Amino acid sequence: MKAVVFDRRLRFAADAPQPLPKPGEALIRIQMAGICNTDLELIKGYMDFSGIPGHEFIGRVEEASGASSEWVGKRVVGEINCGCGTCRFCRSNLARHCRDRTVVGISGRGGCFAEFMTLPMENLYVVPDRLSDEEAVFCEPLAAAFEVLEQVHIRPGEQVLVLGDGKLGLLLGMALRTSAGRVTLAGRHAAKLAIAAAAGVKTVPAATPAAGAFDIVVEATGTPQGRAEAVKYVRPRGTLVVKSTVVDTEDWDWTPIVVNELTVVGSRCGRFGPALQALQDTILVRPLITAVYPLERALEAFEHARRPEAVKVLLDMR
Amino acid sequence: MKAVVFDRRLRFAADAPQPLPKPGEALIRIQMAGICNTDLELIKGYMDFSGIPGHEFIGRVEEASGASSEWVGKRVVGEINCGCGTCRFCRSNLARHCRDRTVVGISGRGGCFAEFMTLPMENLYVVPDRLSDEEAVFCEPLAAAFEVLEQVHIRPGEQVLVLGDGKLGLLLGMALRTSAGRVTLAGRHAAKLAIAAAAGVKTVPAATPAAGAFDIVVEATGTPQGRAEAVKYVRPRGTLVVKSTVVDTEDWDWTPIVVNELTVVGSRCGRFGPALQALQDTILVRPLITAVYPLERALEAFEHARRPEAVKVLLDMR
Repeated sequence: MKAVVFDRRLRFAADAPQPLPKPGEALIRIQMAGICNTDLELIKGYMDFSGIPGHEFIGRVEEASGASSEWVGKRVVGEINCGCGTCRFCRSNLARHCRDRTVVGISGRGGCFAEFMTLPMENLYVVPDRLSDEEAVFCEPLAAAFEVLEQVHIRPGEQVLVLGDGKLGLLLGMALRTSAGRVTLAGRHAAKLAIAAAAGVKTVPAATPAAGAFDIVVEATGTPQGRAEAVKYVRPRGTLVVKSTVVDTEDWDWTPIVVNELTVVGSRCGRFGPALQALQDTILVRPLITAVYPLERALEAFEHARRPEAVKVLLDMR
Repeated sequence: MKAVVFDRRLRFAADAPQPLPKPGEALIRIQMAGICNTDLELIKGYMDFSGIPGHEFIGRVEEASGASSEWVGKRVVGEINCGCGTCRFCRSNLARHCRDRTVVGISGRGGCFAEFMTLPMENLYVVPDRLSDEEAVFCEPLAAAFEVLEQVHIRPGEQVLVLGDGKLGLLLGMALRTSAGRVTLAGRHAAKLAIAAAAGVKTVPAATPAAGAFDIVVEATGTPQGRAEAVKYVRPRGTLVVKSTVVDTEDWDWTPIVVNELTVVGSRCGRFGPALQALQDTILVRPLITAVYPLERALEAFEHARRPEAVKVLLDMR
């Protein structure tokens, strides 16, 4: 099958082996896939990944191994963490924290930048017909944005700052706007801020928010520098949510966190249910699509996704 | 008056000017004072401090400026943060987070390594007669240990790890043992671990706890390396409490915090009320006293406090 393969360098392969579904797994024919910042970090060395990257997808079930033939033909998205099914995390619906997990396109499991991919049936969600492929492919990153609302209690009127106007920053602005807080998004790119503003999110240029003025700051700049900057916007006893996974370590001063007694919350993947619902109800993601490339031109798509002005770049396998 | 003065170097001064109480402040004759790790960091450059250091004390009110003459002669300890009295933090009993605060012996206000010190009367607590000076001087660091229980909800049976068997680590072990959690203290010094064990705290050698086995980890090693190590003991979605203020920054990898969705809580000073109560009820601090020096030998006391085997070194001004 055609696939994008990373093994110290990124390449397009016309003859990658097609994965075989294990019992309980579906073989999925990928329709569309999205390039995430994590993919750009993976190919810089994050997670020591090698294989087929990609974890944002919508596809159609081609084969369902085992008795679950009712899945065949369904349009699906899927949660990307595959747990052991028996540990305390898996038993509490937190397979994404199972120690023995594999993660689609990130760790121990092939990803979706390919014609086919396998995934346990229990990870799948049927996509309602009213959602287009272009919308549904945003389910994974939007779930990651809603995860902040699962972890942090935002009280009525609290001042919330999202730092970063990239792919995730814009989705965070839209998702957090559904909370009781008052959300401001700060970024460096006028065109991206305009997308957020059109979605009703208050926007300001980067570096202009007042120091110590926010109850909750969500860092989504994707840079180590952004994280150091984020700390200064949090009021004493406030909360800093850290979303970016970057391969670089950074020279970090813990003093403001201890002295101001901040709470720092690491935040990663979220549940697909609320994200699928929000895509139908309130969140309009189409303005975030910068470009769509066929799988054969994936390397070009990666280059495009890396440009400062790009938001979401999609791959189209249809 | 006699005092310890730091101004790029630490020295003993026989003729430092005696401070004058402002309206609402008490002049306190210091009886005893304790050397804290923060003091050792201050003289390495933390907070760009200059002046008289020291913030752990018990003293006797010599003069009370204004109408509050009932304070004169009282044996007191005192909270070290002095707020503006009018901001949102001061109005919520959180003067320790007032932006315009001064902090005894740390920031903008002379400390207690001297014969006399001034402090607003509203910061003072009368020490019950049944507490000796040697016990009461532990009120400030014990309050900082109890602060963890104000900030973090420890559920019955949760596994709690305290990292570090220094002054603060031992107090944390004793304080957290009053919670519903199961507390383990890990450290490098057999003699210090023995003090914790005698107080009923379970102890283990440093670096032996199982990775990911703890719901809550409290980092009190006082070293940047300790902080990096602490992360690995926290289970996914668990909590890391950071107590140490050190002058060094460190090369820090945020990946485990984001991927494991940890909560990191910065923790500093605490309320004196619960600490004074605990000193009377349950916490025996005398075994933590390594040595007592007269004020004139404060430089020797600092040297002693820096030695790896030292726990609490006190200065005696009586």
